[in-house]
Amino acid sequence: MSPSTALLTDHYELTMIQAALASGHADRRCVFEAFARRLPDGRRYGVVAGTGRALEALRDFRFGEEEIAFLAEHEVVDRPTLDWLADYRFTGDIWGYAEGEVYVPGSPLLVVESTFAEGVVLETLFLSILNHDSAVASAASRMTAVAHGRPCIEMGSRRTHEESAVAAARAAYLAGFASTSNLEAGRRHGIPTMGTAAHSYTLLHDDERQAFATQLQSLGLSTTLLVDTYDVTGAVELAVELAGARLGGVRLDSGDLVNQAFEVRAQLDSLGATGTRIVVTSDLDEHAIAALHAAPVDAYGVGTKVVTGSGHPAAGMVYKLVSRENGAGQMEGVAKASKDKASVGGRKYALRRRSAAGLATEEIIGIQEQPADDGDDRTLLVPLVERGEVVAPTDVHTARAHHERARAELPQSALRMSHGEPALPTTYLDDWS
Amino acid sequence: MSPSTALLTDHYELTMIQAALASGHADRRCVFEAFARRLPDGRRYGVVAGTGRALEALRDFRFGEEEIAFLAEHEVVDRPTLDWLADYRFTGDIWGYAEGEVYVPGSPLLVVESTFAEGVVLETLFLSILNHDSAVASAASRMTAVAHGRPCIEMGSRRTHEESAVAAARAAYLAGFASTSNLEAGRRHGIPTMGTAAHSYTLLHDDERQAFATQLQSLGLSTTLLVDTYDVTGAVELAVELAGARLGGVRLDSGDLVNQAFEVRAQLDSLGATGTRIVVTSDLDEHAIAALHAAPVDAYGVGTKVVTGSGHPAAGMVYKLVSRENGAGQMEGVAKASKDKASVGGRKYALRRRSAAGLATEEIIGIQEQPADDGDDRTLLVPLVERGEVVAPTDVHTARAHHERARAELPQSALRMSHGEPALPTTYLDDWS
Repeated sequence: MSPSTALLTDHYELTMIQAALASGHADRRCVFEAFARRLPDGRRYGVVAGTGRALEALRDFRFGEEEIAFLAEHEVVDRPTLDWLADYRFTGDIWGYAEGEVYVPGSPLLVVESTFAEGVVLETLFLSILNHDSAVASAASRMTAVAHGRPCIEMGSRRTHEESAVAAARAAYLAGFASTSNLEAGRRHGIPTMGTAAHSYTLLHDDERQAFATQLQSLGLSTTLLVDTYDVTGAVELAVELAGARLGGVRLDSGDLVNQAFEVRAQLDSLGATGTRIVVTSDLDEHAIAALHAAPVDAYGVGTKVVTGSGHPAAGMVYKLVSRENGAGQMEGVAKASKDKASVGGRKYALRRRSAAGLATEEIIGIQEQPADDGDDRTLLVPLVERGEVVAPTDVHTARAHHERARAELPQSALRMSHGEPALPTTYLDDWS
Repeated sequence: MSPSTALLTDHYELTMIQAALASGHADRRCVFEAFARRLPDGRRYGVVAGTGRALEALRDFRFGEEEIAFLAEHEVVDRPTLDWLADYRFTGDIWGYAEGEVYVPGSPLLVVESTFAEGVVLETLFLSILNHDSAVASAASRMTAVAHGRPCIEMGSRRTHEESAVAAARAAYLAGFASTSNLEAGRRHGIPTMGTAAHSYTLLHDDERQAFATQLQSLGLSTTLLVDTYDVTGAVELAVELAGARLGGVRLDSGDLVNQAFEVRAQLDSLGATGTRIVVTSDLDEHAIAALHAAPVDAYGVGTKVVTGSGHPAAGMVYKLVSRENGAGQMEGVAKASKDKASVGGRKYALRRRSAAGLATEEIIGIQEQPADDGDDRTLLVPLVERGEVVAPTDVHTARAHHERARAELPQSALRMSHGEPALPTTYLDDWS
């Protein structure tokens, strides 16, 4: 059995349950929704990621003996609440945007229908997963878009928490990255892994010739040699001397990558190594990748910037109570009125309006009812959990295929790197009442 | 037994071992060092965090049957390498800055002495942990410094990966935060947890009066009521009406916090609730906290900005081979010459130069030898692992105490929020040769 995820939770979720149990309101039927009020500055769209991981975490969300013992010892909540938690199973329904879907401000990414107590306790864990994974996928999608088919390799594990690294590899792959350096992501999620050598391998040996020769001998001619430890031109010449024209690739990790790529390509070609690939790494982000498109580069290795969301490490999603049962047993929309943070009450439904040619044009959000499909549209909320049972796929491969399709529907403007409006305007069909 | 950490590693660490085993250089004695080439823009110092977690991860760094089976199935490395990995135990020595120590550019934060293969395979995991935890602690330390004794509460779990959240709570506590909202951080690391209620609790009820009354009844008068769901002035009046002057606190989560804090303080005082605390939350960072010092605020709840390193989610540490055995069996310094990324070869030793009054003045780094202590200085590298055995404390409480002492030694300029030079100049005593 997997370890419990139940304590990956904020203290106040449990004290709210205690107070609601005491007040007799814990069982009121409620709708919680996760959404982003805005996109990070400069972004045209976001990518929903982490849904599959969230559903797996839901399966493991159990307060077992150890969790209850901790809560009791530290008097986090009272005995009736501990008893309630010990029996906790989510029995409600969850809808959401399919993992890999594109979103804009206000898109109802997750809709949780359950009692108050069953739904509120999932807030922290669901947001942790969605905010992290969507931040990475949203950045990664821009990178793969501007890479225009050249493979992007995720290699940022060392720049983020060791478990975030596995999730980041998953989110980047979802958004079109070709592979990852992270072995656990390979094992856990079936993502292709790759890697060659670091500067330390060259420095270990008495000289670069010995390092290259032993790497080629052990890993084969298809390996990629790192050529910037000492002098790039000398290293490229040595690499082809040792490997011949069948050398798999060379990696550049420093300096002016655009100019060096041209020089190295010319040198490789002049040495007959026309099939040898040039891989570049070194603090790449979507802007650097876009600039490198002009250069003869074959693959991009991306580290820090993809795993940290390229300047936006959290997607800014919130999880809000939007509707609940009233004293008369009827559902009614609710929303806070806090300055700058007001939200739209009422259960949401969402439709991606598309032209007859299949081009996405608008995000239509219905309040309390499903907007009418005019024939070419796409319903965005799909069932994820029915009466507590996960009913949607949780694997990254399905999400990756979905993202490719969803992004292909977007207008060209969505893929621009310049600042601008969201790719799709958000239209609310009705105010809640 | 804890799960293995061995696959939280980059693919190329293992292929380098394969090539080094084949070349006969895998057993060369080596020194790897972790350090930061520079501090994030605007920072005067960094805080070493994650050392204890890294040492615990080292204990669990074992290639068991499942790990070997994955590597074999996916042909990551060859059979001799799999056999070597299956027997892997780190048997070398590690020194490092004590967890919680302050650092500047070039500070040798971790010094790993072992064979090449034993040391290189730890690169990714050690950097993941140190880069993440130090990024959080470095941001958190600035926040607690400008809070001038007012408690800071870490509540950013929902803005970062669910496991990063636990590590972030630990790093923030190390750097002087008073508590966390994250329950798992409470269980795993013994950090005080706290929390009260969200807007959803108020919205669940028919009106704010019912919400406040039930919260007070269940959680007691010492609880903190969230007063910005509808109208702050009305909510404060209601809160004191229901709880009386013994109300523990009110929380403001939106709007202009400085002005509101003054208004709410005046209102509370006029109602006789002079002991009721004002807690503010809402996208706080070190600059907002500094600005709020002028206002009558009693505690700061910090979320996104602390768990994501306040603009710098990775500390930028690297792990470099700086010295290795040569063909004659003697150790020699090595360093790459890559543009913009050149490093200083040779095993480092570090001393914090202090005045007679105990004020830190300089980071002295000796190459291949320990700098001489002039009587008031402090040696920075302490033994962490001896012949494979962890010999240093790994708990956060020791690190927290160490950080408090180390920060107190820094000159006043270190705590300025404005951009500027590192708090201590880094002086290399000698070039390696």
